[in-house]
Amino acid sequence: MKKFYPLALLFLMVSVFTVIAQNNIVEDFKPSSVNQPGRQYPQVNSEGRVRAQILALDAKYVQLDIGGKKYDLVKDSTGVWTGESTPQDVGFHYYQLNIDGASVPDPGSLVFFGACRWGSGIEVPSADQDIFAMKDVPHGHIQEIYFPSKSTNSSPRAFVYTPPGYNQETAKRYPVLYLQHGYCENETSWPEQGRANLIMDNLIAEGKAKPFIIVMTYGMTNEIKFGGLRNFDIKPFQTVLVDELIPYVDANFRTIANQENRAMTGLSMGGFETRLITLNRPDVFSYYGLFSGGVYTPEEIKAHSKLKLIFESCGSKERPDGVRNSVEALKAAGVNAVSFISEGTAHEFHTWRRSLHQLAQLLF
Amino acid sequence: MKKFYPLALLFLMVSVFTVIAQNNIVEDFKPSSVNQPGRQYPQVNSEGRVRAQILALDAKYVQLDIGGKKYDLVKDSTGVWTGESTPQDVGFHYYQLNIDGASVPDPGSLVFFGACRWGSGIEVPSADQDIFAMKDVPHGHIQEIYFPSKSTNSSPRAFVYTPPGYNQETAKRYPVLYLQHGYCENETSWPEQGRANLIMDNLIAEGKAKPFIIVMTYGMTNEIKFGGLRNFDIKPFQTVLVDELIPYVDANFRTIANQENRAMTGLSMGGFETRLITLNRPDVFSYYGLFSGGVYTPEEIKAHSKLKLIFESCGSKERPDGVRNSVEALKAAGVNAVSFISEGTAHEFHTWRRSLHQLAQLLF
Repeated sequence: MKKFYPLALLFLMVSVFTVIAQNNIVEDFKPSSVNQPGRQYPQVNSEGRVRAQILALDAKYVQLDIGGKKYDLVKDSTGVWTGESTPQDVGFHYYQLNIDGASVPDPGSLVFFGACRWGSGIEVPSADQDIFAMKDVPHGHIQEIYFPSKSTNSSPRAFVYTPPGYNQETAKRYPVLYLQHGYCENETSWPEQGRANLIMDNLIAEGKAKPFIIVMTYGMTNEIKFGGLRNFDIKPFQTVLVDELIPYVDANFRTIANQENRAMTGLSMGGFETRLITLNRPDVFSYYGLFSGGVYTPEEIKAHSKLKLIFESCGSKERPDGVRNSVEALKAAGVNAVSFISEGTAHEFHTWRRSLHQLAQLLF
Repeated sequence: MKKFYPLALLFLMVSVFTVIAQNNIVEDFKPSSVNQPGRQYPQVNSEGRVRAQILALDAKYVQLDIGGKKYDLVKDSTGVWTGESTPQDVGFHYYQLNIDGASVPDPGSLVFFGACRWGSGIEVPSADQDIFAMKDVPHGHIQEIYFPSKSTNSSPRAFVYTPPGYNQETAKRYPVLYLQHGYCENETSWPEQGRANLIMDNLIAEGKAKPFIIVMTYGMTNEIKFGGLRNFDIKPFQTVLVDELIPYVDANFRTIANQENRAMTGLSMGGFETRLITLNRPDVFSYYGLFSGGVYTPEEIKAHSKLKLIFESCGSKERPDGVRNSVEALKAAGVNAVSFISEGTAHEFHTWRRSLHQLAQLLF
């Protein structure tokens, strides 16, 4: 048995370390940057643990629920419940509280649309959070628009980012990026938790990105059942985007209204939609981006004569080899393709903020 | 005692009627128009009762809390709690749920900023809700802007409504209304629960209002303690509004940048601020509006040579005589003053939506 000692020792050390770590929560918690005004909780520490707190005098139990994993809170003598999660990845996470079986938003947090609901969000500080920080630089505007849609007999909403200078340099025209959210998110997801406007303001101020317009609308025109993407009919959303929204944007904003100056990108389900629409309509966009949203094969796009760039990305905790292999194959076929892997993040918004930050420097 | 019989009978009838009414809730509940996508609860019936429902398997009690008045919900065998409020005034109300002592947002409702928090809201249908309905008419845009503020060393947010046609008729310039929220609300309150953009879109489509720009920013620059308005220092917000925001708007939007084409209006605390700023700076605005936010005396504004209109309003359940008497006194002094009393509403947003609908038809 002697030869197994080192392994046994290693196991013992790992176990002891784990226990120490669990009992030694680093007490440098600070309020999350996306708390409601003046609220002290939730908080996050340097390990990425989330500490929640709520008054619930008569509750039997209260839990912090991050992505379906539940952490018990403990009640003090005044009826205030407090508790921590394990360390979380850097960036943005949706969460909720569970009070005696009721899943509810945390009144301490701002609310964000994700997981098919308006609910709580937490921001775990990251080394690169500067890319979407609010700085003293010229800021673009985000316009909330309602555009006419005959195909759906409604007035869908979109948000349009116009870069700094748009309202002063009134003769200048701009390229446009159509940027789509993921499954069970909506048109607020990119401007809110995605920080698309601040990422662009900062890049433009640093001279790292050309000023362009970004259009973000709701992508779930027809009902999409979770897991039902294989049977998904892209036509209803394609009609809204290509035949209704693009003409409205070109008529109402100072766009350069041609294929060479138009990009489409989406995250997750929005990447899936981007792929289908760009393949169905190779005459509309010249830049294609998929963030954690699938890949192109060289065969699919070989007739796309006006294609200028394919950008594919995902988190290192997703399946980065799929993205890397796809981009290698595209490059080998002579396509201008770029891959980006977000280090230490999974299928969440920090991966996509970083992806936009990378892609924006390559566009137009 | 014989002469007291009629009174006793009346008391008895009132009591009996009350009991009948409580046991005879009209069962025509429909989901509130401001529910989260796809959510069936909360609901409202034709009496204006609010019915809330939530799953809370292990809760001891659940209450619906509208403006501090709490209504008990009842649990069924599956752990779902359901219950109704008494009839509410027409229009918009903030509310929350109380689960075993925890005050939390209702996951069924969209969230709105009011009462110093992002929380739940309910819409009780009104006979005049058509004034802010989403219709198939040309829609203006709401722009989210961050403007530089040296006095606060920050980039405060504002929302700017530009009317339909603003982005097409690129030579046209527009008058501007600066429109302020109330205590513990923020710059989202007028575009969200106030429906300011839809009220304007509809009025403009009907030819009842001239197209103008509306600017809505955060009005609580310095801390204001509830009940502490008498000691309130208006200077910090006045500096942000008059010396920083107005120049930014005039530089970034196609405004008619003079006093004759500039209005200021606010609701509640925003009316209080409007009154102070217009009195301190009679050189900036020509139209003054106070919605449930105090009154002017003829003496205060007798030197205001460029004043074109004073508009004062409130709900019939507030103190309408104060508004009526003030406007009579202003008129007697030769001022162009208009009063408006919102029938059947109190110190809530339906009063202010109606007030904007009236005022907008008188502006510019």
